[in-house]
Amino acid sequence: MKGSKDLKNIKIAYIGGGSRGWAWQLMRDLATEKEIAGQVALYDIDFEAAKHNEAIGNELKKREDVVGKWDYKAYETIDGALTGADFVVISIMPGTFEEMASDVHLPEEYGIYQSVGDTAGPGGIVRALRTIPMMFEIAEAIQAYSPNAWVINYTNPMSLCVKALYTKFPEIKAFGCCHEVFGTASFLCEMLKDMEGIDGVKRQDLTYNVIGINHFTFFDKASYNGVDLFPMYDKFVDKYYDTGFFDEASKTNWMNNTFSCAHRVKFDLFKRYGSIAAAGDRHLAEFCYGKEYLKDPETVKAWKFGLTTVDWRKKDLKERLEKSRKYLSGEEQIDVTPSGEEGVLQMKALLGLGNFVTNVNIINRGQVPQLPLGSIVETNAYFSADEVRPVLCSDIPSELLALFSRHIYNHESIMKSALTGDLNHAFRAFLNDPLVTLDVKTAKELFDRMIHNTKKYLTMYQIG
Amino acid sequence: MKGSKDLKNIKIAYIGGGSRGWAWQLMRDLATEKEIAGQVALYDIDFEAAKHNEAIGNELKKREDVVGKWDYKAYETIDGALTGADFVVISIMPGTFEEMASDVHLPEEYGIYQSVGDTAGPGGIVRALRTIPMMFEIAEAIQAYSPNAWVINYTNPMSLCVKALYTKFPEIKAFGCCHEVFGTASFLCEMLKDMEGIDGVKRQDLTYNVIGINHFTFFDKASYNGVDLFPMYDKFVDKYYDTGFFDEASKTNWMNNTFSCAHRVKFDLFKRYGSIAAAGDRHLAEFCYGKEYLKDPETVKAWKFGLTTVDWRKKDLKERLEKSRKYLSGEEQIDVTPSGEEGVLQMKALLGLGNFVTNVNIINRGQVPQLPLGSIVETNAYFSADEVRPVLCSDIPSELLALFSRHIYNHESIMKSALTGDLNHAFRAFLNDPLVTLDVKTAKELFDRMIHNTKKYLTMYQIG
Amino acid sequence: MKGSKDLKNIKIAYIGGGSRGWAWQLMRDLATEKEIAGQVALYDIDFEAAKHNEAIGNELKKREDVVGKWDYKAYETIDGALTGADFVVISIMPGTFEEMASDVHLPEEYGIYQSVGDTAGPGGIVRALRTIPMMFEIAEAIQAYSPNAWVINYTNPMSLCVKALYTKFPEIKAFGCCHEVFGTASFLCEMLKDMEGIDGVKRQDLTYNVIGINHFTFFDKASYNGVDLFPMYDKFVDKYYDTGFFDEASKTNWMNNTFSCAHRVKFDLFKRYGSIAAAGDRHLAEFCYGKEYLKDPETVKAWKFGLTTVDWRKKDLKERLEKSRKYLSGEEQIDVTPSGEEGVLQMKALLGLGNFVTNVNIINRGQVPQLPLGSIVETNAYFSADEVRPVLCSDIPSELLALFSRHIYNHESIMKSALTGDLNHAFRAFLNDPLVTLDVKTAKELFDRMIHNTKKYLTMYQIG
Amino acid sequence: MKGSKDLKNIKIAYIGGGSRGWAWQLMRDLATEKEIAGQVALYDIDFEAAKHNEAIGNELKKREDVVGKWDYKAYETIDGALTGADFVVISIMPGTFEEMASDVHLPEEYGIYQSVGDTAGPGGIVRALRTIPMMFEIAEAIQAYSPNAWVINYTNPMSLCVKALYTKFPEIKAFGCCHEVFGTASFLCEMLKDMEGIDGVKRQDLTYNVIGINHFTFFDKASYNGVDLFPMYDKFVDKYYDTGFFDEASKTNWMNNTFSCAHRVKFDLFKRYGSIAAAGDRHLAEFCYGKEYLKDPETVKAWKFGLTTVDWRKKDLKERLEKSRKYLSGEEQIDVTPSGEEGVLQMKALLGLGNFVTNVNIINRGQVPQLPLGSIVETNAYFSADEVRPVLCSDIPSELLALFSRHIYNHESIMKSALTGDLNHAFRAFLNDPLVTLDVKTAKELFDRMIHNTKKYLTMYQIG
Ligand SMILES: [Mg+2]
Ligand SMILES: [Mg+2]
Ligand SMILES: [Mg+2]
Ligand SMILES: [Mg+2]
Repeated sequence: MKGSKDLKNIKIAYIGGGSRGWAWQLMRDLATEKEIAGQVALYDIDFEAAKHNEAIGNELKKREDVVGKWDYKAYETIDGALTGADFVVISIMPGTFEEMASDVHLPEEYGIYQSVGDTAGPGGIVRALRTIPMMFEIAEAIQAYSPNAWVINYTNPMSLCVKALYTKFPEIKAFGCCHEVFGTASFLCEMLKDMEGIDGVKRQDLTYNVIGINHFTFFDKASYNGVDLFPMYDKFVDKYYDTGFFDEASKTNWMNNTFSCAHRVKFDLFKRYGSIAAAGDRHLAEFCYGKEYLKDPETVKAWKFGLTTVDWRKKDLKERLEKSRKYLSGEEQIDVTPSGEEGVLQMKALLGLGNFVTNVNIINRGQVPQLPLGSIVETNAYFSADEVRPVLCSDIPSELLALFSRHIYNHESIMKSALTGDLNHAFRAFLNDPLVTLDVKTAKELFDRMIHNTKKYLTMYQIG
Repeated sequence: MKGSKDLKNIKIAYIGGGSRGWAWQLMRDLATEKEIAGQVALYDIDFEAAKHNEAIGNELKKREDVVGKWDYKAYETIDGALTGADFVVISIMPGTFEEMASDVHLPEEYGIYQSVGDTAGPGGIVRALRTIPMMFEIAEAIQAYSPNAWVINYTNPMSLCVKALYTKFPEIKAFGCCHEVFGTASFLCEMLKDMEGIDGVKRQDLTYNVIGINHFTFFDKASYNGVDLFPMYDKFVDKYYDTGFFDEASKTNWMNNTFSCAHRVKFDLFKRYGSIAAAGDRHLAEFCYGKEYLKDPETVKAWKFGLTTVDWRKKDLKERLEKSRKYLSGEEQIDVTPSGEEGVLQMKALLGLGNFVTNVNIINRGQVPQLPLGSIVETNAYFSADEVRPVLCSDIPSELLALFSRHIYNHESIMKSALTGDLNHAFRAFLNDPLVTLDVKTAKELFDRMIHNTKKYLTMYQIG
Repeated sequence: MKGSKDLKNIKIAYIGGGSRGWAWQLMRDLATEKEIAGQVALYDIDFEAAKHNEAIGNELKKREDVVGKWDYKAYETIDGALTGADFVVISIMPGTFEEMASDVHLPEEYGIYQSVGDTAGPGGIVRALRTIPMMFEIAEAIQAYSPNAWVINYTNPMSLCVKALYTKFPEIKAFGCCHEVFGTASFLCEMLKDMEGIDGVKRQDLTYNVIGINHFTFFDKASYNGVDLFPMYDKFVDKYYDTGFFDEASKTNWMNNTFSCAHRVKFDLFKRYGSIAAAGDRHLAEFCYGKEYLKDPETVKAWKFGLTTVDWRKKDLKERLEKSRKYLSGEEQIDVTPSGEEGVLQMKALLGLGNFVTNVNIINRGQVPQLPLGSIVETNAYFSADEVRPVLCSDIPSELLALFSRHIYNHESIMKSALTGDLNHAFRAFLNDPLVTLDVKTAKELFDRMIHNTKKYLTMYQIG
Repeated sequence: MKGSKDLKNIKIAYIGGGSRGWAWQLMRDLATEKEIAGQVALYDIDFEAAKHNEAIGNELKKREDVVGKWDYKAYETIDGALTGADFVVISIMPGTFEEMASDVHLPEEYGIYQSVGDTAGPGGIVRALRTIPMMFEIAEAIQAYSPNAWVINYTNPMSLCVKALYTKFPEIKAFGCCHEVFGTASFLCEMLKDMEGIDGVKRQDLTYNVIGINHFTFFDKASYNGVDLFPMYDKFVDKYYDTGFFDEASKTNWMNNTFSCAHRVKFDLFKRYGSIAAAGDRHLAEFCYGKEYLKDPETVKAWKFGLTTVDWRKKDLKERLEKSRKYLSGEEQIDVTPSGEEGVLQMKALLGLGNFVTNVNIINRGQVPQLPLGSIVETNAYFSADEVRPVLCSDIPSELLALFSRHIYNHESIMKSALTGDLNHAFRAFLNDPLVTLDVKTAKELFDRMIHNTKKYLTMYQIG
């Protein structure tokens, strides 16, 4: 039929295509999917890394157990990668471990502990400032070379990355994806087993409504076969509040060894707010008052989650580089079972191959009428041919709005800072962050030091 | 599992349960559905009619070809029917054919022709005034006896009926359903056959986004297997603009013998506005300037749709009464193939038996951020366990907003009139209706005569 | 005190400075105002006309009865006029009498009569299309040469002119002024005399709240010394409904000889809507259904207002050219009593010389929360140093919202047409206009002919 | 002229009319105002106190230096006082010093210091819970006995008192007044003297735009004779940042001996946010992070403002009781120079005697489109005959929105708690307050103790 896309000739541009993590996830999911095929265009500022992934990817299509046949090609320029793309995936690391170490660990000198440091808090804010100019560049390239492509962002800080894309190119068809919500849904499946002995339920079997902002999302409704899961969760929280609960999912997920938690923060938030927090505890904790879960390393330990150190990240990267070597040499092969991520499913839906509802980060055009238009919110959305339509969340409790809006206004201030070149706006956001439990003078000192450490990326400011 | 509803013990209250149309549709669809069972409580101001349906319904569960086993019971009071209900269906006829004749035919003396007369236009407005007090009563009864039930309205004028329910009981879980959109979706399936030779496509195989108000809905997106149907529709319109196109669906649908049309109005609206009007032409025409499609009977004939006369309605009722007699006597049996309506599917989704997206009329809490909050709009919505969440439509073209808002503000004025007892507000809406192509003095004369003819129902006004 | 503007060194740029009407008004008002002085920079595409006004203006400061001393200087380029300006006045005539004749009189061939033809209706819409590119150019020049200046627009169609300025340069400090509201306020003063024998009341002594869009404004509140004027107006309308009432103001106002009316349209709108329409009848009539006040010349005569013909405009210009000649030759002198316009008062307020409340046309940022953000509305606003803050109108009756929104959505469609170069959007607005009482085919013919007649100005379209 | 109020027969109902502070202010201002006269109806739960004020008030009209002649009358029931009232003044003390001591001082055991304790913070929240049922009662009485009266509230916590009035009676014509903003305006006058040697400027000579919530208001614009005061304030802050500045106003204002401050908090907030905080430092400090200005008594001393103790309040009341005795005995006479408050000026404006712009606390119907509709905000408003129209504030910086919204969402949660009888919502607000720098367990302990101490007033909860 005329008008249909050639499903065997899809082009996916991957910005950050030298990645040794998300890129392999994508390869894996594409390999298992037989309805679509085409080219994955890998672009990375580290061209060699992209070349390695080109080689790794092209091995796949030779394998018999691979049903999805894709060509992988590293591009030296972003315009080459983008031109003709149907989809753009953005998954970059903004800066190096050096800047990340400053983001995460310098605040510790001031008594501020961060369990991730890439979303909110001092680290998230400074990382945002570093990332926004990169996202502006990418948005401009998309506008120039592939304005009709669907753009999926995986880079953190998610909210400000997506906001940056829309700020620079308002007509962009972009959304952001993160698997934290899936983890919590899987966790509810384990609850079903633990509390009711119901085994084998998959997260896709549950229905849940997502509200909030990335890494600080909540379910205000969750059900299984029509049964409201909230009363069960209430008892589950009581049962495991003190000891915590270790779920299977957190042990097996590829990224989650150091990422697992006992869900005690989640349980505590339920007791406070009556909604089910839907992200890993290490993310949730960073959105709360700094003297609470992240007061000091002992407190963190008592809440049974971990601080993700940059040293761990370095070690982890080393292992992944080693894995890359093995993939290249043929010593090891990419696993071609589905990863649990939804990127490829979303692409299929956008191509007309199966409507479904999932959660995404996207500009608020009214789906959360209680929060400012133009902010980036995470809610459910209905995916269909060339459309992503958020579902309406008009009834978020004021207590949660208070928590969300604090960060949403910070996002506005940070973006204003990037657009005007006036660092004051960013500092005001910094002061307003719940982790910044410092008086203004001390806060300024920390802020200045952090900015200094990342200044070479802050092209929009005049920094002495 | 604790917390789950007993799916074999559902109670559906049917207000207007003596109906010889919609009620049988429901019986038919319940009979084909094996996952749920329970009682249908029939309430009607004509108790005998309800008793007849009780008898007809109870025959069904004796039949072997019926998999859905329901008890039917006529109630003499509304509280009996509502108490304990999980669902409430509202499908009433407000007034008699006498008032309907005034609504539809009196304006003809003034050169105003109406193809239905139950939605907008002089007839729709006066019918609304008659219906609102009834809906207020029903809403109060629901608040008192079944405040947690889901309420599905089929009564016209849809928008004002649903608005009345929310006005009187703001926490009501109500929405309104109408099959006009389904008809247009089926019509697109016939286009696929006509234009591309693709046969056997069902409306559920299409994806479309619904925007607008009941009986004046549009698709701003429609696709099949990922293929945008708009370019095809564009050619289809050109092919059949002059001759019109008679679809299969309009010939077979139970209600549609006199209701069929050649879709020329629909084609013309596409040429004007670039969106696919999604209702029968006889409804669409009533929302447009009165000197256009409904100028006079010759013009209507040229556009190839029909004026639904009250005489036809009387004849139709006679046939349905005869059918009722045959059902009761056993001469004839109710057909137990699915009717094509979605009410039972919606109930199942609300019970947790299968999420899906369909179109509904519901209060605007932000799903159409460009139209006033509190208005009643028809859009897609996601049905899941105990939830109906509209999907966001934030990008309706200003030309369509202009058309919709004219009626939406009329709905506000009519409701204000009913609430304050000041008929002036209703008359201002009357004047603002596109069918009322009269100067103000003549308009007032017609309005007064129409009000006089229906005054016994207008309990909220002091009418001399 | 440091920081204060030099009040004797103000620069006013006048775009359209060759005008033989508004420009002299401004001269007159500046001449009577001793607190401020400086330069008036005259820019006009007719440079000679600007030179004439330069000479006329510079005569003024030699006169002893003139207390406000200003230099007038004609500029050949807009950048010269704008550079350094504190205020920009825009009062241009878009096109010539030739285009205006097409706007106003061509529709008469189709039975559409327009009393002004420069605001809404076929003429207003086509005039808007012609004017928008000019306003875009002016906005760009202001952004480049005087971005901090306050911009006062007098050009019609007011709403779309102001919208065009904000569309091209969103940070512009612009508003639009029109004296129609003042006329109605003065008319209420005459009512006080007629009904209560209270003489000498000036419009500034009244308090009234303005709602609506330019030339279709209403008072929803009006009082004098705390007395609500609505009950008095109600009786006044009854007294003069049939005969009409000729006010003094309409006889003496400089522009209003042919513009006077008997206020019968105003009275009729009060009977319909219960609010006091606040513009001349010839403007009000153009916003109403075309078969009402403007049905044909006889009907117009019966309603006792006039059709402003282009012949009259030509004759009027001739007289004004003659007056210009006399001013230049010294045969006649400009009257230096206050004109009744408020432009100079507004400039003073913006300079910190006297806060006050008046009505303006400005972008809706929330002052009318019931109408779309970004539309141009006319409401009261509080003028103070460097600030114009609209007052809130949150309670406009739905019947008036229905009337306003119809035109506001038309403005959106017309602007979209200008921005996208797609004439269809403008035609859809045309069809939606209440004066266009034609079927779609005939409407298209008229539209095409009108567009053809003005096409040389429509630089944004590809017209065959 | 018919329709005008009899200005010599106005009735003012004073709820809390036994007051030994605000009541005397009102007497004083009414005494100096000759255009209006009538009756002041005093209602108080302490009837004897009202009787004392009746006697004190009635003395006034005998004095020759008093031009405003009013009758004072104590009423035993609220309906007597309200019936026929044109204005209602609400100024009550919710509870006794015993509850206030718990509000203010119990948190000190947990390291939480409050400088006032009646607005936000632990004390403000608990006081709100105690006050809301009283306001509900008053609103119901107003609805029953004087629904058209204008209602002026002076009771704290201002935002929640006004919100309670609108919640119970949505059509109420109520607003709230507070003199903190006036104090800051006067302070700017002193700056003019200090920085520029300009003497004798009164606050009414300044123009300023107010944004925020009561006791945490800011100026985003301030000018004198057209001169922007922000650059001057910037230097002023630099000059006095370390030492602080003691203004004359704070020394002479009747309430302000213990209330004076050095404005160092105000200066610090300017450095942080670039806007001029417009309330006493003791109020401002309570809206900021608890470890900042209110960290401990030493820190408070360093910032040069005071903690208002309940002991001081007791002493102050004793002095005012002594003054009451002297007024009654004739030993002392009420001063009849204007107090500086604006209540009487507002009443006059509402009666049609002089439009003006001032700041009020009122329901957000769109005047701050960036904050939730229905919240209580403090902005400028235009007072005229029977109208209070807020001016639009559409451009509040995101950094201030972050601060305001945190409290605004708390107000919503507190109101929800009062309406539903679920204390959890109030506790969630408590946790979200910036002064509550406690972990959740400790916070709960404090909350429970505070609630216990005030429980007899909390009629909406079931408290064990
Ligand atoms: Mg993530
Ligand atoms: Mg229908
Ligand atoms: Mg005008
Ligand atoms: Mg106060």
